[in-house]
Amino acid sequence: MIALWLEDRRLRLRDDAQLPDPHAGEARVRVTLAGICNTDLELIRGYYPYAGIPGHEFVGVVGQGPREIVGRRVVGEINAACGECPACLAGRRTHCPRRTVLGIAGRHGAFAEYLDLPAGNLHLVPDSVPDKIAVFTEPLAAALEIREQVSIRPEDRVLVAGDGKLGQLVARSLALTGCRLLVAGHHRRKMDLLEVAGIRVAAPADIGAAEFDVAVECTGNPEGFALARRALRPRGALVMKSTYAGALTLDASALVVDEITLVGSRCGPFAPALRLLEEGKIDPRPLIEARYPLRDALAAFDHAARRGALKILLEP
Amino acid sequence: MIALWLEDRRLRLRDDAQLPDPHAGEARVRVTLAGICNTDLELIRGYYPYAGIPGHEFVGVVGQGPREIVGRRVVGEINAACGECPACLAGRRTHCPRRTVLGIAGRHGAFAEYLDLPAGNLHLVPDSVPDKIAVFTEPLAAALEIREQVSIRPEDRVLVAGDGKLGQLVARSLALTGCRLLVAGHHRRKMDLLEVAGIRVAAPADIGAAEFDVAVECTGNPEGFALARRALRPRGALVMKSTYAGALTLDASALVVDEITLVGSRCGPFAPALRLLEEGKIDPRPLIEARYPLRDALAAFDHAARRGALKILLEP
Repeated sequence: MIALWLEDRRLRLRDDAQLPDPHAGEARVRVTLAGICNTDLELIRGYYPYAGIPGHEFVGVVGQGPREIVGRRVVGEINAACGECPACLAGRRTHCPRRTVLGIAGRHGAFAEYLDLPAGNLHLVPDSVPDKIAVFTEPLAAALEIREQVSIRPEDRVLVAGDGKLGQLVARSLALTGCRLLVAGHHRRKMDLLEVAGIRVAAPADIGAAEFDVAVECTGNPEGFALARRALRPRGALVMKSTYAGALTLDASALVVDEITLVGSRCGPFAPALRLLEEGKIDPRPLIEARYPLRDALAAFDHAARRGALKILLEP
Repeated sequence: MIALWLEDRRLRLRDDAQLPDPHAGEARVRVTLAGICNTDLELIRGYYPYAGIPGHEFVGVVGQGPREIVGRRVVGEINAACGECPACLAGRRTHCPRRTVLGIAGRHGAFAEYLDLPAGNLHLVPDSVPDKIAVFTEPLAAALEIREQVSIRPEDRVLVAGDGKLGQLVARSLALTGCRLLVAGHHRRKMDLLEVAGIRVAAPADIGAAEFDVAVECTGNPEGFALARRALRPRGALVMKSTYAGALTLDASALVVDEITLVGSRCGPFAPALRLLEEGKIDPRPLIEARYPLRDALAAFDHAARRGALKILLEP
């Protein structure tokens, strides 16, 4: 099959990629649309030691698997857990130490004609949700993970640092809470998208110190972290939604004195993400920047790596 | 009056120290016993820019103030808040940006014959609680702050990193929850004190990775932080109870991937601390290493700064 292949920090297109036979309990999905995430760009930069087919945001149609889902349109949770270890039995399947992760660790991903996932990882996509919306289920679920971790009340002042792909989805998901939301960003075009969605925006220089109850870091750079930290009032919560290229240096004493809580946040729940997309409560379509055939995946990656690019989709 | 005086990172004993007249609403307390805390040692090292009388752990007798408390034995909360700002009105008085802090910021402290605090900061000491126990109210309250911030269940595996003054009180306060508690420490004598109190201990090298639900950092050094971090399972909580001399460098991506929560923790509630001391549920007396007259405060500080020293008390 055609697939994008990552090895030694280099991407290439292969015509001869093969998947092994699916394991018991797994389904084979024909990918119809996939999205490029910043994590994919980081994989190429070598932040994680992965070789194989990348890609973890997708929608597709089940080809092989349990009879009741064959032919059905699905999205899929990306962590394939063992189901038996203490972490799994405690309900932390996304933290199973033996997990493989679609297109990230130990499992070929979505930038291909087909992928395999445990059938239990798949969620049926309602007919009313087109592929170009359903393909945002995974990143929207990650944005919703914040709501699983931190209680957001309508009176809370919440800052999102970053107006990129992740910040856009995080802001849209937080706006549903009715909180007093502000997004700090640099890019006029992206700020406009937020304003059209009814979300207030400001330049980082205009963000006051100690004025926010919750800050969500969506930039993945130390300046974004510093902005989020500075904006928090004592006893506030700083949600770290981005991974970082290097080490982050903190004033730990100030964290203690101000009793700040830092919360690392990764993958989230698919069911509410799909429901919000189905109900139209979150419309990700303005975030689509371009759509490429899988054959042009290298050009698509060049596009995705441009400063300020929003979501690039790949169509096998 | 006699008082210890800190200025330009140097301590000296003064015979001629004077307190200004107490402000309206403040009480003057004759100090009967005070404790040396690591924060006092850090003040001398210049970690905070404070000049004046240090000391914030004390018990004493009210000399001037509201009639109903004159002559009564008291301990006192150390943050003197404005009571009017948004932080105060939101119930975060220990984070009032206009606060003074006894012996730490803008307010002379307890290593003196007398100190002043707002009357509302004072708590009456039950007659059955002797001074040498009551003087631990402030650090025990700080240990109990953890319980205000993180839910500890009996089945939780909880690690305390550090067997010093702070770690000892934190461990004793956490032991009350019935959790599966372990203290990582280096010092045989201090580990023995913990074992006598029924608390399990281990050398840092024997602490497993990813085995604890909650870890409390009580060492104030990066090695202690690294131990606590390594010991935590994904989605665990790392409570930072100590301040740090310098910056702390973190693997932020690992925090995100493992969805770790870091919680800065400072001053805590006096009422439950006093009650636990009164009921004998926590007995801090084994932590008393020596008692010096205030006149010998310089020698007392030398003793407190010795590696492995436990609580040194000063008696005006």
